[in-house]
Amino acid sequence: MDLKETILKFADDVQDDMVACRRDLHAHPEPGWTEFRTAAKVAKTLAELGYTVKTGADTIREDAMMGVPSAEKLAKEQQRAIAEGADPDWVKKMDGGRTGVLGVMKFSEDGPVVAVRFDMDSNDVTETTEAAHRANKEGFASCHAGAMHACGHDGHTTVGLALAKLLASLKSELRGTIKLCFQPAEEGVRGAHAMVESGIVDDVDYMLGAHFGFKMRKTGTVACNVTGFLATSKYDAHFQGVPAHAGAAPEQGKNALLAAACAALNLHAISRHSAGASRINVGRLDAGSGRNVIGDKALVCLETRGATSAINAFMETEAQRILKAAAMMYDVKVDIEKVGGAAGGSNSPELAAFLEKEANALGIFDKVVGECPFGASEDFSYFMERVQSHGGQAAYMMVGADLAAGHHDSHFDFDERALGYSLKLMGCAVCKLLLSK
Amino acid sequence: MDLKETILKFADDVQDDMVACRRDLHAHPEPGWTEFRTAAKVAKTLAELGYTVKTGADTIREDAMMGVPSAEKLAKEQQRAIAEGADPDWVKKMDGGRTGVLGVMKFSEDGPVVAVRFDMDSNDVTETTEAAHRANKEGFASCHAGAMHACGHDGHTTVGLALAKLLASLKSELRGTIKLCFQPAEEGVRGAHAMVESGIVDDVDYMLGAHFGFKMRKTGTVACNVTGFLATSKYDAHFQGVPAHAGAAPEQGKNALLAAACAALNLHAISRHSAGASRINVGRLDAGSGRNVIGDKALVCLETRGATSAINAFMETEAQRILKAAAMMYDVKVDIEKVGGAAGGSNSPELAAFLEKEANALGIFDKVVGECPFGASEDFSYFMERVQSHGGQAAYMMVGADLAAGHHDSHFDFDERALGYSLKLMGCAVCKLLLSK
Amino acid sequence: MDLKETILKFADDVQDDMVACRRDLHAHPEPGWTEFRTAAKVAKTLAELGYTVKTGADTIREDAMMGVPSAEKLAKEQQRAIAEGADPDWVKKMDGGRTGVLGVMKFSEDGPVVAVRFDMDSNDVTETTEAAHRANKEGFASCHAGAMHACGHDGHTTVGLALAKLLASLKSELRGTIKLCFQPAEEGVRGAHAMVESGIVDDVDYMLGAHFGFKMRKTGTVACNVTGFLATSKYDAHFQGVPAHAGAAPEQGKNALLAAACAALNLHAISRHSAGASRINVGRLDAGSGRNVIGDKALVCLETRGATSAINAFMETEAQRILKAAAMMYDVKVDIEKVGGAAGGSNSPELAAFLEKEANALGIFDKVVGECPFGASEDFSYFMERVQSHGGQAAYMMVGADLAAGHHDSHFDFDERALGYSLKLMGCAVCKLLLSK
Amino acid sequence: MDLKETILKFADDVQDDMVACRRDLHAHPEPGWTEFRTAAKVAKTLAELGYTVKTGADTIREDAMMGVPSAEKLAKEQQRAIAEGADPDWVKKMDGGRTGVLGVMKFSEDGPVVAVRFDMDSNDVTETTEAAHRANKEGFASCHAGAMHACGHDGHTTVGLALAKLLASLKSELRGTIKLCFQPAEEGVRGAHAMVESGIVDDVDYMLGAHFGFKMRKTGTVACNVTGFLATSKYDAHFQGVPAHAGAAPEQGKNALLAAACAALNLHAISRHSAGASRINVGRLDAGSGRNVIGDKALVCLETRGATSAINAFMETEAQRILKAAAMMYDVKVDIEKVGGAAGGSNSPELAAFLEKEANALGIFDKVVGECPFGASEDFSYFMERVQSHGGQAAYMMVGADLAAGHHDSHFDFDERALGYSLKLMGCAVCKLLLSK
Repeated sequence: MDLKETILKFADDVQDDMVACRRDLHAHPEPGWTEFRTAAKVAKTLAELGYTVKTGADTIREDAMMGVPSAEKLAKEQQRAIAEGADPDWVKKMDGGRTGVLGVMKFSEDGPVVAVRFDMDSNDVTETTEAAHRANKEGFASCHAGAMHACGHDGHTTVGLALAKLLASLKSELRGTIKLCFQPAEEGVRGAHAMVESGIVDDVDYMLGAHFGFKMRKTGTVACNVTGFLATSKYDAHFQGVPAHAGAAPEQGKNALLAAACAALNLHAISRHSAGASRINVGRLDAGSGRNVIGDKALVCLETRGATSAINAFMETEAQRILKAAAMMYDVKVDIEKVGGAAGGSNSPELAAFLEKEANALGIFDKVVGECPFGASEDFSYFMERVQSHGGQAAYMMVGADLAAGHHDSHFDFDERALGYSLKLMGCAVCKLLLSK
Repeated sequence: MDLKETILKFADDVQDDMVACRRDLHAHPEPGWTEFRTAAKVAKTLAELGYTVKTGADTIREDAMMGVPSAEKLAKEQQRAIAEGADPDWVKKMDGGRTGVLGVMKFSEDGPVVAVRFDMDSNDVTETTEAAHRANKEGFASCHAGAMHACGHDGHTTVGLALAKLLASLKSELRGTIKLCFQPAEEGVRGAHAMVESGIVDDVDYMLGAHFGFKMRKTGTVACNVTGFLATSKYDAHFQGVPAHAGAAPEQGKNALLAAACAALNLHAISRHSAGASRINVGRLDAGSGRNVIGDKALVCLETRGATSAINAFMETEAQRILKAAAMMYDVKVDIEKVGGAAGGSNSPELAAFLEKEANALGIFDKVVGECPFGASEDFSYFMERVQSHGGQAAYMMVGADLAAGHHDSHFDFDERALGYSLKLMGCAVCKLLLSK
Repeated sequence: MDLKETILKFADDVQDDMVACRRDLHAHPEPGWTEFRTAAKVAKTLAELGYTVKTGADTIREDAMMGVPSAEKLAKEQQRAIAEGADPDWVKKMDGGRTGVLGVMKFSEDGPVVAVRFDMDSNDVTETTEAAHRANKEGFASCHAGAMHACGHDGHTTVGLALAKLLASLKSELRGTIKLCFQPAEEGVRGAHAMVESGIVDDVDYMLGAHFGFKMRKTGTVACNVTGFLATSKYDAHFQGVPAHAGAAPEQGKNALLAAACAALNLHAISRHSAGASRINVGRLDAGSGRNVIGDKALVCLETRGATSAINAFMETEAQRILKAAAMMYDVKVDIEKVGGAAGGSNSPELAAFLEKEANALGIFDKVVGECPFGASEDFSYFMERVQSHGGQAAYMMVGADLAAGHHDSHFDFDERALGYSLKLMGCAVCKLLLSK
Repeated sequence: MDLKETILKFADDVQDDMVACRRDLHAHPEPGWTEFRTAAKVAKTLAELGYTVKTGADTIREDAMMGVPSAEKLAKEQQRAIAEGADPDWVKKMDGGRTGVLGVMKFSEDGPVVAVRFDMDSNDVTETTEAAHRANKEGFASCHAGAMHACGHDGHTTVGLALAKLLASLKSELRGTIKLCFQPAEEGVRGAHAMVESGIVDDVDYMLGAHFGFKMRKTGTVACNVTGFLATSKYDAHFQGVPAHAGAAPEQGKNALLAAACAALNLHAISRHSAGASRINVGRLDAGSGRNVIGDKALVCLETRGATSAINAFMETEAQRILKAAAMMYDVKVDIEKVGGAAGGSNSPELAAFLEKEANALGIFDKVVGECPFGASEDFSYFMERVQSHGGQAAYMMVGADLAAGHHDSHFDFDERALGYSLKLMGCAVCKLLLSK
């Protein structure tokens, strides 16, 4: 039995295990930087399979983390994870929310370094309680109010663990080095940057990532050449003014509410860019205390995007200056915090072509589409950018899956057969790449 | 013993009862339109004293109520009040938050009609837990989280009940008719309008109101000629847009957040008025759902003020048009709700002069100040305006009281000796007025 | 013949001369800082009457001048004035637009210093060509396109010269010192500040000013107690950005047009002031070059006002910061120039009472009104403020005159009989004041 | 001698005539809708060559004209043109600025209809007076202050007349019908719409247009496949408010200046469009009368653009609503006038390919570039859209020319050898197309 046959059979054999694993993760969703139970499970499994496992500061550079919960919140979530069965030793190593996990297996001294990235975090969504929703019918709905795997990362992590097992089982036949990167906090595009900055992909020759669904909403389809990742940055701006009675002494106030309103309008008036698409959005504005008090504080949550990192950088520069000018306009203070970001970019064409060829050769897909413009943001782009910057190749695939509802919807669910499709394609592609040099 | 001596002695005799009553009310603060326990206590007491008591629709015109809580909330508060000892029959009569209470006693067919107004509601403030705060030391702090009598209305209601008892005890010596008006929802200037519109003061010749503290922060002082009530109006504007993904399809959204921001800026740019002072304030602006979603909804809480009702009307007309224009600007819907208001005005000079003379004649005050410009808003102005409009006279007093902290502060408390000062002046003045024609 | 009779007769005798003088000035209107012909005529006349005459830097402090035309423009206007008959020597002394003239006559070493101010400049208005307009019918219309005496300053200067002659004729009977101040650039409230800063009124005990018409639109009336001068400041803000093609490279532009628009909106949103009336107005905004070019330059002309100088100072501080913040908002430069200003203030009550008494005693006025709230701005307030600041008294009168049309209207004209009324009142009042100590 | 040789020789023979013609037109530049001298010359020449000539209402649909000068201005320009030698009969036919000219020659009843468009108008630019500028050196500079051929339309019209002569000379050898369209008012993209709406290209099978320079700044180069015309619309918005004294009665004003400022900011905040590039620019904003007057009038000049006509239509809809909302915001009136516009679009690929082949086959070009993204707006797109809409083909070429300075610069000039390149390519292409069916 050749490698391909072996892999396909392996995938079919572990399909039920994958479903069970995915459902366990689905029932215990963990938002960004609090994936203690998930990450501990990943770390423990990888270690048992013989991988060298790194976590904590070895995978996450602290000063590059964005949008991290409070220390208090993190400590509480660590307790919660342990109460839900997580290994306390692994959880301890992830202090400070540094929940990234890297599993490395060196098959030979020579040969290429191949990496794959899987994201682990859940969404801030409360899962529907409708009886017809499969997770309710079959008993694997989220047991965490306000959190739900509504984007399929439970499936991604599951495929990652199955791939780890597959590669370990083929140890003797492979060359080079495999690096399996389990990333926290993809939602809000916060986590990849800190993993990349830890240096873990600086030696990678080929890097893969994948997502279920999105633009491929039919099981049995796949897109291997994803282009047009929008670079993005996320900011919170906190305006601080001075309250005053609006009737008795309005001139004594410093109006943070108006500063925020002024910022919002002028942010949206940032010039279009002739080099390509740009975006700006103030998605939240909460300001003021009471009707008869000059608004003394305000929170503005915004994001910028650009077809390229350069365009996004232009948007960021504009946005930061505008926020400061709005504060000056009303003589208030502003504290600007970057809480997320992703690079722009596109798949490496050669690697994309290789993946398309592989997908077609597997003979299991109904349809392998060509170029697929993404038009949104994913922080896999940070891995992509880093690997491409030192001459490596990177690619992102969309693995088709029938969806019960759109991503981030409280009724989200995906066809679990997609787990197998993903494992098969990824397994074959990774093995070929490991054996390629 | 003449009438004045009788009244002074009565007030001294009931001082301890008044303190007890005030502290009971202080412990059970009830925000506007939910004063079920307070109002039921008032109604029951008045009835027992022989007053004809009206409540519910007889004192509150439903379509003139502003800023009313939801039916669900009101029902819950009625249950809460009953659980705290309120008479279920009276509470039932106040369905829909119609918690106004009117006590009428006709001493003779002829003679003048004299009315006094007392406000009953509490503030949306959580009382301090500091041990040094008297309400904590002496055990009468609020037992309702988020609610506190931080403006002295507990004292006002207490004086009202003592005055009721005093006048009932002097029944045989008095002429004319007394109307004691216990008003809900003075905070947010929401309640007086609905009481006035029920017609209960349409036959009143003399009307009094009073407030502890405010500009008179020393026990033993009093101001009898309050002028310059600022007319005011309170509005909530709810903007409703259409959400859309800010990266993938921003043009499909209808941006309620920007409509609200645009409204806020342009509201504050309403022209000054050459006829006198005006005010505008957007005190709260809450908008948007998520950072990457076009802001699909927004709430704007605002107020206008004017030195006269005409100036305030100018401000209101401007504000309403601006809110609608801001909605049109971003193609969203806006629902504008008036949630409060007060008229402008000043004391009737003759009645003020009468009160000053009375206060001086009593011989108990250290200081009786002359004209006292208010420069703020109080919905007693609605009573004043109505009574003055049909040829009656109305006046508002500030009864001095040492304060532990400013009004609406979580450390607020007042010198309870002020209860006696207020009762003595009001008792004497009311009796003289009843006997005046 | 007593002094009063003498003065009344003098005034009647010079009435025709005054009309001729006024019409000569009317035909040669000169806008602020270009009053070379007028000022030279004044200087020459005063010198001939025996006054010590100062002009140029002796009456105008250069660094306190506001809204001065370009050197080129000034030189051209000097030529023009000489061509129209002005004495070249006097014109030369007024280099740099320093057209203030001071005439001093010391009657005795002791006695009070009395000053009177007359303004000389014209408006930027083109006089109507309608035949019915008296200046056209009787041949004394403006011969300077775009300039017109549409505010009556031609009359003020005329009265000043007649008063100079009157006082010189009474030389032997008077005591003290008279200072006649002929001020340039009252329009735009630009000139008084520079005259006051030259120190010429630092020793003045009594100071008078007067205006025809305004609130007194009937010949034979007068108001002697003018109160409520609004303090005011005038600013020009020049925004400088960078142009760019709006289709091909909008992001390369720096948008001065939007900066100006943003400034205008936020300036009008400056908070009301609880201490009294305030005003803000952006009265002109000219921005941009072409439809398809990012607006690279903008001019914003604004003014602030306040019931007191302190309130106006608050408005100025706010306005300056807002202009700078708007520039920062769009990354453009802004140059802010103060081009005018006046203090707030009111007549000295004692001097006002003295004038009222004088006016009544004269027996020539049909009506002498009491307090007259001004509610606008006049830079006489700078003289008033300075004189009052060192313990002197100052007052401003409005001398009634039938008007053909409102001030600043192209059809403006006033009843020339008012010249006599003004001279009589001022003559008597000044003589009494000179003889008062 | 075959057709190609004939054409090349003809072009060389008329080169000097073309230079003379171009220089005559250059010396007499005529802005949009006032091309009376140019159009009369064109009409007369075409008639003399045997073309059926249409002008006035036969080529310009009045209600589709945009940005037309006043009747007074047009009448004056007609007089001016006649004074400069234009044929009065032809000028008369162009009353109302309807200066479009169509020359038709039917070579045979059958065969295709081929059209070519030439634009005739000049720019609102004053030609440099620098001696080194060729038009000055060689005496053909503009004799109309404020007007200049700074975009090369003098050359376009010249080539059109030479082509007319060429085709007339080949009359016996050709088939089908030629339509030569001489268009007014291309600047401001105002004229094509009205010509197209007159129906003159409704039967056209092939339509060509060309421009000198632009992206092809080297003589001897050409681009035959121009894509990405940005659709655009130009608007003037006139806001009309009510003036009032900013100190005495600001509340009586209706502030058109603030309405315009508000419009400008919110126009620039129109959402980006996910389907492609969009643009918005307020390029001019002139508002207000005087510093101390509430701004009573304002002019806002703006333009929208879109990668497609649909995107531009989105921008237009947004812009119109925003202008109206801004007027409502300040209770002023707004009059919105569309003063220009162009469709989006791209060359018909088959026709572009044909032209590239022709250009290469001619053997005279140094370089024939492939696809050339335009990224700007030209109202030839209206012709293109109309012809393509009924199944015809249209294409626009950029004929390379060395430029002395950029388009619309006061130093603009082009290498006149480009006239010959253009005539040769256009002559050969048109003849081939006429003979193609």
